[in-house]
Amino acid sequence: MKINYKAITSPPNKGELTNRLEKIRILMDRENLDYYISFDPTNIYYLTNFAFYVHERPFILIIPKEGLPKMLIPLLEKGHIEQRAILELDFIIYYEFPAREGENWFDYYQKLINKDATVGIESMMPMGIVDKTPGKKIITDLIEEARIIKTDYEIGRTIHACKIVNKGHRVLLKKCRPKVLEFALYKEVTNAMTSKIVQDIPNANFRATQTTAAVWPPSISHDPHLVPHIFTEMEEGGPHVSIVQAQVDGYGVELERTFFLGNVPEKAKEPFEVMISSRALAYNLLKPGSVMSEIDKKVRKFIFEKGYADYIIHRTGHGFGITGHEAPYIAEGYDRKLEPNMIISIEPGIYIPGLGGFRHSDTVLITQEGYQKLTKAPETIEDLTITI
Amino acid sequence: MKINYKAITSPPNKGELTNRLEKIRILMDRENLDYYISFDPTNIYYLTNFAFYVHERPFILIIPKEGLPKMLIPLLEKGHIEQRAILELDFIIYYEFPAREGENWFDYYQKLINKDATVGIESMMPMGIVDKTPGKKIITDLIEEARIIKTDYEIGRTIHACKIVNKGHRVLLKKCRPKVLEFALYKEVTNAMTSKIVQDIPNANFRATQTTAAVWPPSISHDPHLVPHIFTEMEEGGPHVSIVQAQVDGYGVELERTFFLGNVPEKAKEPFEVMISSRALAYNLLKPGSVMSEIDKKVRKFIFEKGYADYIIHRTGHGFGITGHEAPYIAEGYDRKLEPNMIISIEPGIYIPGLGGFRHSDTVLITQEGYQKLTKAPETIEDLTITI
Repeated sequence: MKINYKAITSPPNKGELTNRLEKIRILMDRENLDYYISFDPTNIYYLTNFAFYVHERPFILIIPKEGLPKMLIPLLEKGHIEQRAILELDFIIYYEFPAREGENWFDYYQKLINKDATVGIESMMPMGIVDKTPGKKIITDLIEEARIIKTDYEIGRTIHACKIVNKGHRVLLKKCRPKVLEFALYKEVTNAMTSKIVQDIPNANFRATQTTAAVWPPSISHDPHLVPHIFTEMEEGGPHVSIVQAQVDGYGVELERTFFLGNVPEKAKEPFEVMISSRALAYNLLKPGSVMSEIDKKVRKFIFEKGYADYIIHRTGHGFGITGHEAPYIAEGYDRKLEPNMIISIEPGIYIPGLGGFRHSDTVLITQEGYQKLTKAPETIEDLTITI
Repeated sequence: MKINYKAITSPPNKGELTNRLEKIRILMDRENLDYYISFDPTNIYYLTNFAFYVHERPFILIIPKEGLPKMLIPLLEKGHIEQRAILELDFIIYYEFPAREGENWFDYYQKLINKDATVGIESMMPMGIVDKTPGKKIITDLIEEARIIKTDYEIGRTIHACKIVNKGHRVLLKKCRPKVLEFALYKEVTNAMTSKIVQDIPNANFRATQTTAAVWPPSISHDPHLVPHIFTEMEEGGPHVSIVQAQVDGYGVELERTFFLGNVPEKAKEPFEVMISSRALAYNLLKPGSVMSEIDKKVRKFIFEKGYADYIIHRTGHGFGITGHEAPYIAEGYDRKLEPNMIISIEPGIYIPGLGGFRHSDTVLITQEGYQKLTKAPETIEDLTITI
C-alpha cells in the first residue's frame, strides 16, 4: 500500500514545535537532566525555527525541565530572532562580543543554570562554551536523537524539497551535453531550483536554504568528493555522476544518478549493473526492524563477491532532516533498527580509477510496510543514456 | 606615506604555509605544548589551504612540536584534500563514519597522541572530540592568534577581495532604484562578483568562496541583522543601508554604505552627519599602539553626547581574515593594541526605529603610519544621494 503523503510548504505552527520540545523533555526525563543546552544551529533551528550561522557572538538555548526555554542572544539579533522563532522563548540579551567586564555573554549565561544541576550537552558543543557551563555535564545528543524520527509535517516538507531536486535533476539531464562547462550546469540547475523555491515558499528562510548541482564527468567520477573545477567540460560517453542537493527552507534532500552521453563504454556496463543490483538488494531490506549495519554489510558483501571489493569507498546511506547528511546511518558500526518515518539515502557506490564512478542516490522514507522513494529520476542504463 | 600593496590572486606557495606553521610552533613552544590539535575548518584552511565543511566524518589536524603535521581524514576525501592541500602533511585515513568496532576515527586518533602529553586545543573544539583526545588538555586559540597579523601575501589577497566588493557595490548603487526587489539586487550583485572572481581566479575554491549583497530599505534599516524578505521593495528616500560581503577564495571582506534614492528626508540629515563624524573620529585613532577598547569607548561617547545613546547596538568594528568576522575586535572589553598588518572594519552605526539605520563600513589595513582603506565607494551624503 502506497501512502499518499502531501507536500507541505507552510511554516511549522506552534503545536509542531511544542511537540518537538516535548520529545526532548521526555528524553531529558529519561536521563534525569535538569537542563539541556543546545548550541548547534541545526538543533536550535529544529526546535525554534530560527536559523543562524555560528559566529563569535554565541546563541545558546537553555531548556529547563519545566517552563519556557531560555535563549541567550546578542542584542543585534533580537529583531531577527523575533521575526523567525515560532517556539515561545524567554530571551536573555547581552550587548556584544566582546563586552565590558561583567557584561559578557557568559556572565548572563552562568546565572541561568544552578551550580548543582545535571546538565545535558551536545557532543558538538565547543569546549569554550562547555567551560562556562555550570553543573554536572553529561554529553548526550538528545536533539539529534529526536530528529531521527520525522513527524507528518516534516515528511510533508521533505516531499516538497524532493520536488525541488526532481526539477533540478530534470534540468540537469536536459542541459548536460559534451563540452558543456560545470559552471554553466551549476548555474542553470541551481537557478531553476531557487526560482521554484521562491515561487513555492515566498517567505523561505535563506539562512536555511541552499542548492547545489554538479556533474563528475567520467575522467573524475571515480573520486566523488573531489570538487570538480568550474571549467571542467562534460564528455561524450560516461559514466557521468550527478549530485543535485537542496536544503529547502530547512529540509535537506538529494538526488544523484550515473548517466551516459551518447554511448555506454563496454567496460562500464558490468559495474553499472552491479551497482543497480546492489541498490535493489538494499531496497529489498528496507523495512522497519532491519538492522542498518546489516544492510550495509550485505550490500558490501554482494559488491565484494562481484569482484569490486577494492572500489567501495563509502557506506550505503545516511539520514536526512534539517541537513542533507545526518543520523541514522546505513553503515557497519551503526547497529540500530529501521523505524517508520526515518528518511534516508540509499546510495551504494563503485568507484574505479581509469573508468569512473557508479552511484544512484535517492531520498527514501521508511514506512510501516517498507519504504517509499521521495525523489524521482530515470534509473535504468537505457533511460540514462542520453542522445546527443 | 601610502604604501602601494599589489593585489594577489595566485594560491599560496609552500613557503607561505610553512611560515604560518612556524608561527604556530613558536606559540606552542611559549606554552610548552607537545601537540596542538585543530578541528576548526577555518584554522585548518589557514594552515593547509584545504577547505571543507564540518560534517559527521571528522577531519583533525594534529601538529606535533616537531616533524610533519598529521591529518586524520575519511577515505572519501583523500583525493579532495590531495587536490587542495599545499602544506606537507602526513595523512592518516579511516574508512567511514560510523565504522566497525576498532576502525572508527577515534581508534586511529588516540594512537597519534601520547597519553602524558600536553595538548593545546581550540575553544571551538567540540566536546565529543575533546573527550577522545589523550593527554593534558589546555584551551588556547593559537591559530586565531596567529591569524590576527597578516603576511604580505594575505594583504595582497585581501586587496584583491576588496576589488570584488568594490565592483559589487558599484553594481548595487547602479541598480538600486525605488520598487526594485531585494532578490533582483542580490542576483545582479552576486552574479557580478562571482563572474569577476571566476575571471580573476579560474581555480578559485568554491568551498572558501561566497558572495552576499543586500539592501535594507528605510522601513527596516534600523534593524541591521534582520534578514530582508526577498520580495522587499526598495523605496524612495532613505536611509537605505547596503551590505556587500565576499569571501574570495579564502579571503573575507566587506563594504557597506548608507544611501538615499532621490531625496534625503530632513530628519535623516543629522544622524547621517553624526555617523560620518563618529567614523572620522575612529579613523583618527587608527594607528599602531591605539587600544581597541579605547577607540570603541571614544566613538560611543561621541555618539552618546550627540544624543543618540539609545541607538547604538553594536561595536565599532571587527577583524577580517579567512572569514568576514573574526578577531581582533574594536570593542569595549578588547584591551589590545592595534598593530601593523591587522585588517579590520570601521563601522560605527546608529539605528533609529521609525527613521532607519546609518552605517558605513570599510575594510581597512593598519599600517606603520596609520591605516589604508582597502575598499572604495562614495562616502558623502551628496555622493550617496542617487538621482532617480
